[in-house]
Amino acid sequence: MKQVKIVLDTSVFVNPDSNRYFGENPRKALINFLDSIEDKKHISCYIPPSVYEELLNFTEKLLPTKKTLLINKKPPSSYESGVPARLVYEFIEEIRLRINKGLRIAEKYSRQNNGEESIKTLRQEYRVAMREGVIDSKKDFDLILLAKELGAYLATADFGLVTWAQKLGITCISAEELKELIA
Amino acid sequence: MKQVKIVLDTSVFVNPDSNRYFGENPRKALINFLDSIEDKKHISCYIPPSVYEELLNFTEKLLPTKKTLLINKKPPSSYESGVPARLVYEFIEEIRLRINKGLRIAEKYSRQNNGEESIKTLRQEYRVAMREGVIDSKKDFDLILLAKELGAYLATADFGLVTWAQKLGITCISAEELKELIA
Repeated sequence: MKQVKIVLDTSVFVNPDSNRYFGENPRKALINFLDSIEDKKHISCYIPPSVYEELLNFTEKLLPTKKTLLINKKPPSSYESGVPARLVYEFIEEIRLRINKGLRIAEKYSRQNNGEESIKTLRQEYRVAMREGVIDSKKDFDLILLAKELGAYLATADFGLVTWAQKLGITCISAEELKELIA
Repeated sequence: MKQVKIVLDTSVFVNPDSNRYFGENPRKALINFLDSIEDKKHISCYIPPSVYEELLNFTEKLLPTKKTLLINKKPPSSYESGVPARLVYEFIEEIRLRINKGLRIAEKYSRQNNGEESIKTLRQEYRVAMREGVIDSKKDFDLILLAKELGAYLATADFGLVTWAQKLGITCISAEELKELIA
């Protein structure tokens, strides 16, 4: 059977849309996933330590076992690798557009006569404008670099990750596809 | 004499602090600069086209002459070059901090009962928080990539550019140092 490497993002176990493929909550989803890959010699799963730590926040004290060792907690070799300059141009341009969007939102809210309730709405609107569809954390970049380094699939339900991973030639798979792959 | 390559940023001719080294306004500063380098065979000056275009906005119809040809309008080979992954991590982290700062500013202004006057202050405060000390445009990145590619000095008065250029091992010189160099 063809060897397959998969880098796992938290979202495939945690997102409400995707965890139904593996279990009713993140903890069960992860445990079921580990059960499924136990006898699949052709499948190697990886997760960057930063992302694994994030995942464990959702799974209530999941202690290390033989099964959790089935996922290789490998960080990307970030001091050895590079990215094309073109990617940085696109990233700068994207951030620039978002910063302007953020300002429009700030202006809108400061024109209103606001109570504390609308601060909540402001935060939400601002966060969506700033973060949706963009690499917004080191964890995201860890996932992309690791998938690139290993020539692995990236399993994620995060639209922003998919967009940026694809620019680097990384194959992305959804939670649904991941389930088929390990079936 | 030792050959010296210099990549020029608009700021050395345009910033109020730095243009006094070359002339009382950007146009005169640039013309004086060109006069100074005309007989300096050991000095090669470069500017990315994007940055040259920006500079020309400040110099009122400076037409191409033998002298303006003394500055090589070379873009960086951005489809061939790369940057270390570490730089992207630092960039993501920097942007993340700034996005949070921007939100704090938005919250502050939306708590006040504001008129149009304070929208101006909001814009200013937001722009400073978002842009000062960070690479915020393709032009900035053009300068950094070109200096890196050529092994050139980067002449700039922009603190953000200096910070990021230095991460890539680029020697930065101020307008004052540039003046000494071509004297």
